[in-house]
Amino acid sequence: MSTGLKVAVLGATGAVGGEFLRLFEQRNFPVSELRLLASARSAGKTADFQGESLPIHAVSADAFDGVDVAFFSAGATRSKEWASVATSAGAVVIDNSSAFRMVDDVPLVVPEINGNAITESTKLVAVPNCTAIILCMALAPLRALGSIQRVIVSTYQSASGGGAAMMQYLLDDTKAYLDGEEGTDNRPEGLPPYAFNVFSHNTPILESGANEEEAKVMAESRKILGDESIRFNVTCVRVPVLRAHCESVTVEFVEEAPTVEAVRDVLTDAAGVRLVDVREANRFPMPRLAGEQNDVLVGRIRPDVSNPNGLCMFIAGDQLLKGAALNAVQIAELMQDRGYLPT
Amino acid sequence: MSTGLKVAVLGATGAVGGEFLRLFEQRNFPVSELRLLASARSAGKTADFQGESLPIHAVSADAFDGVDVAFFSAGATRSKEWASVATSAGAVVIDNSSAFRMVDDVPLVVPEINGNAITESTKLVAVPNCTAIILCMALAPLRALGSIQRVIVSTYQSASGGGAAMMQYLLDDTKAYLDGEEGTDNRPEGLPPYAFNVFSHNTPILESGANEEEAKVMAESRKILGDESIRFNVTCVRVPVLRAHCESVTVEFVEEAPTVEAVRDVLTDAAGVRLVDVREANRFPMPRLAGEQNDVLVGRIRPDVSNPNGLCMFIAGDQLLKGAALNAVQIAELMQDRGYLPT
Repeated sequence: MSTGLKVAVLGATGAVGGEFLRLFEQRNFPVSELRLLASARSAGKTADFQGESLPIHAVSADAFDGVDVAFFSAGATRSKEWASVATSAGAVVIDNSSAFRMVDDVPLVVPEINGNAITESTKLVAVPNCTAIILCMALAPLRALGSIQRVIVSTYQSASGGGAAMMQYLLDDTKAYLDGEEGTDNRPEGLPPYAFNVFSHNTPILESGANEEEAKVMAESRKILGDESIRFNVTCVRVPVLRAHCESVTVEFVEEAPTVEAVRDVLTDAAGVRLVDVREANRFPMPRLAGEQNDVLVGRIRPDVSNPNGLCMFIAGDQLLKGAALNAVQIAELMQDRGYLPT
Repeated sequence: MSTGLKVAVLGATGAVGGEFLRLFEQRNFPVSELRLLASARSAGKTADFQGESLPIHAVSADAFDGVDVAFFSAGATRSKEWASVATSAGAVVIDNSSAFRMVDDVPLVVPEINGNAITESTKLVAVPNCTAIILCMALAPLRALGSIQRVIVSTYQSASGGGAAMMQYLLDDTKAYLDGEEGTDNRPEGLPPYAFNVFSHNTPILESGANEEEAKVMAESRKILGDESIRFNVTCVRVPVLRAHCESVTVEFVEEAPTVEAVRDVLTDAAGVRLVDVREANRFPMPRLAGEQNDVLVGRIRPDVSNPNGLCMFIAGDQLLKGAALNAVQIAELMQDRGYLPT
């Protein structure tokens, strides 16, 4: 066995799971052994990694024995069921689900922003909600220019946030529409038509009137930024796009907003952010530019003409990469760089 | 010749032009003679109306002779060229273009809101920008509950705002994508890929950083509402949707925001507005519900948790109907009801 990490992926057959395997290869993530795990339903399937076909096993009580780091991306229920099994077996768990994000002593981490929330004793790290990650990547650098007091966001979220099944539904429903049919047979329960449609995010509405996605973005963004004083107004909406989210954002500073030039400068220098803001060519962030890219794209930077303290911008980021798998792998890389994982 | 109006439609072959003919039939608009006009390029084509095939003529110096009311929907350049010809010939012009909207003595009218801007001597009425109409239909009724001081809007605009060519481009580009092709050949100049994409509105960016569409929505909404004190923050975005626009709106009142119940009540009573706000079923306004409907749909009504004076809502309206042709026909109906047109 070569030196490197014994890695497990729980949820290996999902949309995010597939991205993990690609990222391990692309980034030369030091994998000495890769254990692919999924529900019993998917056991027996295979996935390709470094030219080999690896079997997918049903997750079980001994599945994490000897594992150094386990990436979880199989939903909150499975994370709650298996996280303590994995950490008890000695693995560090990096969890993409919402299960532990708001637990006080679980770090909720975007490495470019709050990697220091992870310490030597950390055994469980939560990956934030995709929309919150993409938003905070654009917000965090602005804090060098002034204190933020309020953020107003409307999202344009892709199908990938609902997993591989929702991506397939969008494709199939669009094909059906173009063929003059009523709709596709594989419409997931509770979803409206998706072909050429826009709809309020398909999570339950809470007492406040916010849906669960909006509540996550608001609470998690505060935790990531480490600032409970920032007030958020978030509207989460699905659009017929495959894998990158967009966000229309107004940032209100405590004092006068920084200039467009100053904002461009800090975003140009920010790791993981790419400025796409070419007014004369009408070239700004969009899903077809952000898809399969690691960077979060930011543009349409302009003063909020309704408020001297306000600044507007438009963001696009790949939901499966920086919104999920890439952020998780970056957390593992950070832990390895700090010597928190075996080398 | 039966009693009724001699009607001309300039731009008869466009996406809005087609809606005029359907609306005249549907609403029993009293047409005694219908003259279909377009550019020389489209002359010789025909259009169906009341079971007859009507010829489309090239617009010319005598095209408006004897016409009582002329609906213009052929772009600002053509409106500027032909409006005075038509009014000099004695016609009332109802203009869907941006040519005269911000001219001081030209009424900019949404009949449910400011029909009184039209007087007996009015010969030219401007139909507002589609996004502004749909927005103001939801804003105007709220003024019964308090003074509005600021409105923050992010739009989800359909292809129909760019006319029949843009709708066809969206369909063709989506087909090409699903067939695994690079894209379609009929991409209009300056537009990015449209299949499964979202992009900043394709109008030039002004010095302020706003694009022309955003500037129109801000200025025209103030004129429609007759309130220059309201501050607007508008971000206009195109989504891959065929014919209905959506808008995510935060309304800030001078004092504490009205309750959700009070807002629902005034919107339920507002003409031309339909409340679609079923939290338990996650049923809210969306393009596939708003398409081919006369009413503007409003829902997701909830407090702005970031501001006690704020209120959030989500709107959808058919861009070709209330956003254009329907609003124009309603203006003509209002003028006829008041005796400003021959009967």
